[in-house]
Amino acid sequence: MKQHYTRVTAFAPATVANVASGFDVLGFALESPGDEVTARLVEGDGVRIVSIASDEGLPELNLPTNPLENTASGAVLALMRSLSGNESEQLLGKYGIELEIRKRMPAGSGMGSSAASAAAAVLAVNALVGNPKTPEELVEYGMKGEAIASGSEHADNVAPAIMGGIVLIRGYNPLDVVRIPAPQNLYCTILRPHCEVSTKEARGILPKEIPMKTAITQWGNLAGLIAGLMKQDMGLISRSLTDVVAEPHRAALIPGFHAMKEVALQAGALGCSISGSGPSVFALSSSKAGAERVGTAMQEALVKECVGGTLYVSQVAEGGPRIVSAE
Amino acid sequence: MKQHYTRVTAFAPATVANVASGFDVLGFALESPGDEVTARLVEGDGVRIVSIASDEGLPELNLPTNPLENTASGAVLALMRSLSGNESEQLLGKYGIELEIRKRMPAGSGMGSSAASAAAAVLAVNALVGNPKTPEELVEYGMKGEAIASGSEHADNVAPAIMGGIVLIRGYNPLDVVRIPAPQNLYCTILRPHCEVSTKEARGILPKEIPMKTAITQWGNLAGLIAGLMKQDMGLISRSLTDVVAEPHRAALIPGFHAMKEVALQAGALGCSISGSGPSVFALSSSKAGAERVGTAMQEALVKECVGGTLYVSQVAEGGPRIVSAE
Repeated sequence: MKQHYTRVTAFAPATVANVASGFDVLGFALESPGDEVTARLVEGDGVRIVSIASDEGLPELNLPTNPLENTASGAVLALMRSLSGNESEQLLGKYGIELEIRKRMPAGSGMGSSAASAAAAVLAVNALVGNPKTPEELVEYGMKGEAIASGSEHADNVAPAIMGGIVLIRGYNPLDVVRIPAPQNLYCTILRPHCEVSTKEARGILPKEIPMKTAITQWGNLAGLIAGLMKQDMGLISRSLTDVVAEPHRAALIPGFHAMKEVALQAGALGCSISGSGPSVFALSSSKAGAERVGTAMQEALVKECVGGTLYVSQVAEGGPRIVSAE
Repeated sequence: MKQHYTRVTAFAPATVANVASGFDVLGFALESPGDEVTARLVEGDGVRIVSIASDEGLPELNLPTNPLENTASGAVLALMRSLSGNESEQLLGKYGIELEIRKRMPAGSGMGSSAASAAAAVLAVNALVGNPKTPEELVEYGMKGEAIASGSEHADNVAPAIMGGIVLIRGYNPLDVVRIPAPQNLYCTILRPHCEVSTKEARGILPKEIPMKTAITQWGNLAGLIAGLMKQDMGLISRSLTDVVAEPHRAALIPGFHAMKEVALQAGALGCSISGSGPSVFALSSSKAGAERVGTAMQEALVKECVGGTLYVSQVAEGGPRIVSAE
């Protein structure tokens, strides 16, 4: 029997999906904020949620504790089903799993909150039963959990929440996740306006068909973004951070989006667009000081719209998801 | 005055544009075949075409010798206009340029024949007048020349014909060309069926709008292809060489396309698709022997369609365009 634990706490971070030209296929992890999940081997069987807590200052959430309806336990159940026939399953045949979920980031903000819980849950349980799966393999089970909250199986938040750094979802049949190395000095600013945008509305506002010319512009930029990241070419990254597909439609759902973007670029951001389906707005910069300056400018622009906002600045590197404690 | 010459011959190679998932934005150069252009400084002014010759075995071409209507001279005229005010222009103020064009590759085949002539012409004239422009800068003038033949300004053939290797055209406003490093052991097979496909028809057969889902599939694959090339990950390159946008429509214009593709993949090709707008078909392989085996299989499949074909195998590297002689 492999090394295993009786109690593991894992952290998985907030994530930015879409990344301008990478609509639906690209995402990256922040260092923080994020969610923590503690998984415990206990007498009995199955998966049980024993607590869901939120950090002070975050809005109260009314998340389901039914294991079939909760993102974190849903991901764990998918992982457990996949372990059929190996020694980790023998372990799970003897014990059940209890989950404690600690939400340490805002939900419904376009920062991948449900993905963070699903990611932390599978990271914790995988470690608990002796790491039978690689992070890449865990993405599939995280997706199943996240689908419970979002209604569709997407990996552009959950893959970077599990793997860290920048991740390309090349395709889904079968799932193909590709790590894209990030320049060390790449920093992200996120401003979360204190308002809500429904993911359903943000999806519904997009056209089902797009002009071929628009699609070509988008994939030229995405190819440039991938090349820019891998060449560590900040100029190319900047020129490639353009979304002609989703942003033109979704910007209208976010108060002050155009003003925030304008001041971010004036303040020296490499690019600025919508994080996930919003309302959070992200910008990339080539230094921490730059990212902070950009954030201040964005926040001032948002205040003019009479909307409050919370600011986060984070390196875009391979940090983020981690095992916090294991015993 | 910079070092300059009185007579320069340049070679520019055949190119594969589109490269499956890179529709309209990606192209790469072969080592051969290609076209040669000799440029000479002569008494007088302007640009004159003194000869157009074709290698033995190639079909006779009826290319225009009017400098305004010919791809090679059109590119040179665009380059000369751009030199306004610098010392290369002073040189051109005193002399005229004569061009000799030697077509050493088939035209109308989807292998970038007009781009090769335009590329060789600007490479030769740029060297003639002391290299005032970088290869990247020459692409813009090559495009102007190629547009005379193709009717639209595209860079996905002419950029790799001038720069060599694999080139991404991130965008056109302004023109942004990005070198993508190629794995050393990447080889290309091209089979040119002895039939014609009009570029106009191949363009006209494509829809003006595409489903969002199709576009996302395409850009996921293109992003994977760029990452695969830069990571030298042959598996990822192979999984990413899929065109869901142009190939499904254009395949019908090429006799035996599906049979050629099937045997190419069976013979171990990483991927197989249409070169440019066809009728040439290209495959990529991870060794020279593999590329030759793939070519033999493709040729056998084409013969079953009662169509002859010419086979080319070439490394995909930064070879290709070069100054052949300068005096």
